[in-house]
Amino acid sequence: MDISALRTANPDHWSKAAAIRALTLDAIHAANSGHSGMPMGMADVATVLFEKHLKFDAAAPKWPDRDRFILSAGHGSMLLYSLLYLTGYKDITLEEIRNFRQWGAKTAGHPEYGHADGIETTTGPLGQGIANAVGFAMAEEIQRAQYGKKIVDHYTYVIAGDGCLMEGISQEAIGLAGRHQLSKLVVFWDNNNITIDGTVDLADRTDQVMRFKASGWHVQEIDGHDAAAIDAAITAAKKAGKPSMIACKTHIALGSSAQDTSKGHGALTDEKLIADAKAAYGWTTGPFEVPAEIKTAWEAIGSRGATDRAAWDTRLATISERKQAEFARAYALDAPKRLAPTIRALKKQITDEGPKVATRKSSEMVLEVINPVMTETVGGSADLTGSNNTKTGDLGVFDIDNRGGRYIHWGIREHGMAAAMNGMVLHGGIRPYSGTFMCFTDYARPAMRLSALMRVPTVYVMTHDSIGLGEDGPTHQPVEHLAISRATPNTYVFRPCDTIETAEAWEIALTSKETPSVLSLTRQNLPTVRTTHTAKNLVSQGAYVLADSEGKRQAILIATGSEVEIALAARDLLQADGIGTRVVSMPCMELFEAQEEAYRKRVLPAGPVRVGIEASVRQGWDKWLLGERGREAKAAFVGMNSFGASAPAEVLYEKFGITAEAVVAQVKALL
Amino acid sequence: MDISALRTANPDHWSKAAAIRALTLDAIHAANSGHSGMPMGMADVATVLFEKHLKFDAAAPKWPDRDRFILSAGHGSMLLYSLLYLTGYKDITLEEIRNFRQWGAKTAGHPEYGHADGIETTTGPLGQGIANAVGFAMAEEIQRAQYGKKIVDHYTYVIAGDGCLMEGISQEAIGLAGRHQLSKLVVFWDNNNITIDGTVDLADRTDQVMRFKASGWHVQEIDGHDAAAIDAAITAAKKAGKPSMIACKTHIALGSSAQDTSKGHGALTDEKLIADAKAAYGWTTGPFEVPAEIKTAWEAIGSRGATDRAAWDTRLATISERKQAEFARAYALDAPKRLAPTIRALKKQITDEGPKVATRKSSEMVLEVINPVMTETVGGSADLTGSNNTKTGDLGVFDIDNRGGRYIHWGIREHGMAAAMNGMVLHGGIRPYSGTFMCFTDYARPAMRLSALMRVPTVYVMTHDSIGLGEDGPTHQPVEHLAISRATPNTYVFRPCDTIETAEAWEIALTSKETPSVLSLTRQNLPTVRTTHTAKNLVSQGAYVLADSEGKRQAILIATGSEVEIALAARDLLQADGIGTRVVSMPCMELFEAQEEAYRKRVLPAGPVRVGIEASVRQGWDKWLLGERGREAKAAFVGMNSFGASAPAEVLYEKFGITAEAVVAQVKALL
Repeated sequence: MDISALRTANPDHWSKAAAIRALTLDAIHAANSGHSGMPMGMADVATVLFEKHLKFDAAAPKWPDRDRFILSAGHGSMLLYSLLYLTGYKDITLEEIRNFRQWGAKTAGHPEYGHADGIETTTGPLGQGIANAVGFAMAEEIQRAQYGKKIVDHYTYVIAGDGCLMEGISQEAIGLAGRHQLSKLVVFWDNNNITIDGTVDLADRTDQVMRFKASGWHVQEIDGHDAAAIDAAITAAKKAGKPSMIACKTHIALGSSAQDTSKGHGALTDEKLIADAKAAYGWTTGPFEVPAEIKTAWEAIGSRGATDRAAWDTRLATISERKQAEFARAYALDAPKRLAPTIRALKKQITDEGPKVATRKSSEMVLEVINPVMTETVGGSADLTGSNNTKTGDLGVFDIDNRGGRYIHWGIREHGMAAAMNGMVLHGGIRPYSGTFMCFTDYARPAMRLSALMRVPTVYVMTHDSIGLGEDGPTHQPVEHLAISRATPNTYVFRPCDTIETAEAWEIALTSKETPSVLSLTRQNLPTVRTTHTAKNLVSQGAYVLADSEGKRQAILIATGSEVEIALAARDLLQADGIGTRVVSMPCMELFEAQEEAYRKRVLPAGPVRVGIEASVRQGWDKWLLGERGREAKAAFVGMNSFGASAPAEVLYEKFGITAEAVVAQVKALL
Repeated sequence: MDISALRTANPDHWSKAAAIRALTLDAIHAANSGHSGMPMGMADVATVLFEKHLKFDAAAPKWPDRDRFILSAGHGSMLLYSLLYLTGYKDITLEEIRNFRQWGAKTAGHPEYGHADGIETTTGPLGQGIANAVGFAMAEEIQRAQYGKKIVDHYTYVIAGDGCLMEGISQEAIGLAGRHQLSKLVVFWDNNNITIDGTVDLADRTDQVMRFKASGWHVQEIDGHDAAAIDAAITAAKKAGKPSMIACKTHIALGSSAQDTSKGHGALTDEKLIADAKAAYGWTTGPFEVPAEIKTAWEAIGSRGATDRAAWDTRLATISERKQAEFARAYALDAPKRLAPTIRALKKQITDEGPKVATRKSSEMVLEVINPVMTETVGGSADLTGSNNTKTGDLGVFDIDNRGGRYIHWGIREHGMAAAMNGMVLHGGIRPYSGTFMCFTDYARPAMRLSALMRVPTVYVMTHDSIGLGEDGPTHQPVEHLAISRATPNTYVFRPCDTIETAEAWEIALTSKETPSVLSLTRQNLPTVRTTHTAKNLVSQGAYVLADSEGKRQAILIATGSEVEIALAARDLLQADGIGTRVVSMPCMELFEAQEEAYRKRVLPAGPVRVGIEASVRQGWDKWLLGERGREAKAAFVGMNSFGASAPAEVLYEKFGITAEAVVAQVKALL
């Protein structure tokens, strides 16, 4: 690569891009770890994007109508941190760059959402960013339909690497974007032909241009170091009328002795290599020193959007006050005032009617009253709409000619769905929820973890949540999936036992600002067991006494979801035998844990024997059965300790021994 | 669709295909659940494949050189069961067909590997079958290189639906097959344009032909009801010299009133619909009755391969006895006799040398001695070869011009890698192991669950198994992943503390016949703590006393992997304070649970306080800390209760409080 030709061809551009490269080398040298090659390779693309196209104002990083920039190849985090520092984002100071990858720094190894403004999403797990971006672009379309082009009109730009494109999730994202002709989505593919193990063709020889075209994308191929070509390609992409992929032929670790090699992917910390690369760049200042004129030029880019932003503020003031308030409320993730009374009214009605329905159906009943009062909800399903019961009458279907549609047919793409939902929340103004079978939590898992890590309140509607699914068999019957979600920090796992608890769970999920929710819902019908109306949301306490013992309390049965019915039946049998038995419904372990100890002790006093009942593995239950330090109670568990089987649901409950009789036997054995 | 034209055009073919359709309708009617449309749509393709091409002998279903038939669209299980019954596989009787989806039947809702011969893999979770098939085809290539074409020379055929092709994993499979030009892989795409939510274009408009071509596949498009076209396409596919996709335009639920509709995807149980469809087929016999001449014709197909198979037996007898024995041994998943002494010798050497290395490096040291004596191992990594330490000197790299290579560069495709490994085991003759970072267990999770459900001993080498990973930060630091794998039935989770335990774990993983293994290995260096050589494999007991208390035993510290070192340091501090402390290393909870109670009580006697130490969430630990029924001990846990952070490893251990001092404090608080 003839660096000197690049330098002389366009020195203004070069020096700005060189600042990214130099900061990358310095930060990684200081940290003694990181990924140098990608920022060095993609600095030209990023510089042109930020200088000529990206609509942003570093002084107003939360401006809702900014363009979004997503670094799907998150290991190249120094590209993003350099850009944020250079353009003048307050959060990323030179001190933060110096502390790259150190405890407490905002400049983590991979970009972490919430650490600093300008980091639009957490990336690093490959393929997530490009799938997030589909959600960003969908959210933009939906919001534009709701608020008009003068309020919502921006692009989503993504840098994706070969790793992102090899991960299966990228195909789900590409297919979705193509299907919906998301014309404001532009993906730069960092086509450097290098992965950790060697050249890309060691593992893949896919013609990416043909692959994107096959899903209906506009595609261009350019030299990723040619500023004019980059500029022209972005201009064309913005006008393409469909999602656009720009294949940028680049040199990883450009200008260093590790250029075009796998070594260049990782941390370049050799001092001679760094000195030689800087010399090739014509970079003469010391470590972390950006010449003032270059910094000034970058800061001008950072403030380039201020006028646009001010004009936008003015336009926003022209729409109705009601619309302005709604826009602000949705961005703040504040629930509408009508939500609470709407839920209360539904609870009252359900208490009166006492329906016997599956909780997936309960969920639909709740959504039917929520969606009309909460216009920021967007629902969907991974091709199980009729099974997940996620579509309500008023939503409309999101499509090319119906951008205001609030229901997404995601196709058989659980992973892409979950990642795109994260993107919708991150974009702002949208509260997404979508469903699949609980067992296919597995497919969505990497994105579900990121909901929790990023602290975004994505809602997962997971139906058919046990062997109660029946004949489809063990491939479709979750047994470990409640434990999996509960093992994940910052995740609410709701397993409601009837329509009332389902309504309460939805209320919490849709008012949560920092915690994603998994709603674990049944296929099979369940009776309404909450027969006395309470205005208070009892699920918010995590667990509560559903039926207390008569006479001396000898046993406490703790159950969730479909097994609460079994616990109540067991209580009847035990009370008939003179054994005082309390039933505790525990729809959300995480919320119960968050209660004051005094409340927890009132619900679960030490002494009586305890039996946990859940058609799932025991893992995660012992805290409530035995107590954190043990010794609280003698206890047993009635649930699953193997995979399920294919047979009608009632046969499976019998064969796997999850019955009232089994519970009674356990209690008696413990007493 | 003009059924009568099809009937008259080729009545012999038609009647055989109609038998599949009729049995499907009858079984689903009896079960009152299932998926009718796919078998009705793909019956013609399957009939031609079985009649004219598939190399098999129903009387010898385990014949190693048979062609493999994989129903990736597993919901269409009645297609497979019908074929197995009709061609005379002993396992699938008419009684089994009648008991479709009932308790104890071999005919589960989705095909379950192990239930019956002829079911080559478990499918249902979409996209798994096509990715398994890549492993089948790779295994065939590797085995052919090892044993020659006269012993190993067969095809892998797959039926995949729109759901399989929308799942991201399919792209990983397509990319791999294209990259390696797996010319003996033929995929039929059931192009019926219907999914559960509606027509395919509701969610996807990808040009699948172009997409497969982009990854280097041979592609044909045919009418999936034209027997001659199907035959010609298969013939062409077999000669293509590359993986071949045949796009079969079909009508879901052919010939019924639900044809070409979403309703046709599911269970067609309406009696009039069934009667009308059978009338259209010209099918006049009663439920479950196949006219004798049709059954006979099918049975002739089932025995068509007997001659081929006998000839193969003869050819097998011509290779060396050593080779014959090796072939049989590998298929039986028997370890070579040299494995045990090889491991023992390594353990002895390591005990003498006492290296301080990361367990991922320990793993490489073990593989260096195992791979030469175990020629059935095939290793790999999802583009982290140098980090996972999975490549040893003698393996060679699997490639188009090196089919005997035993190392696979999977690319950044954890999910496809895991599913293909399952396919390799299922094919037979191969023991695959491959690696990624432990945190990306998430990406591989659906296939890892299927390893456990199918009872196949796939080995997952998961390195960088805690916050000990350091600066890459929380996106790359597992905290819940040990709990996730432990929550999964039939899975060994090994977390060895040094090179000795790593060797013992590998020995168990590579001799396991029915249980997959997850090896959880560190990035950071660990001392050798097993300083006395034992011939016995202590990891096989799951947990054991590593260092006993001196004086009165007041505390038991239980630790795994990198935290065993911390437990030993804590014990030193406690003993110095006169607190008798035992350290138990617990490299495999599942194996400890499988020990006799007397052994478990010897290792963990009731009485002393217990502290568990693992840089992971507590979930799954209470059984060992508190006992199944509680009351065994007062206990505490030192580990993680949040996501990690980006910083050097030693800083993270300090900041998250996983230190010897923290352990000492917990013990003192409990005493």
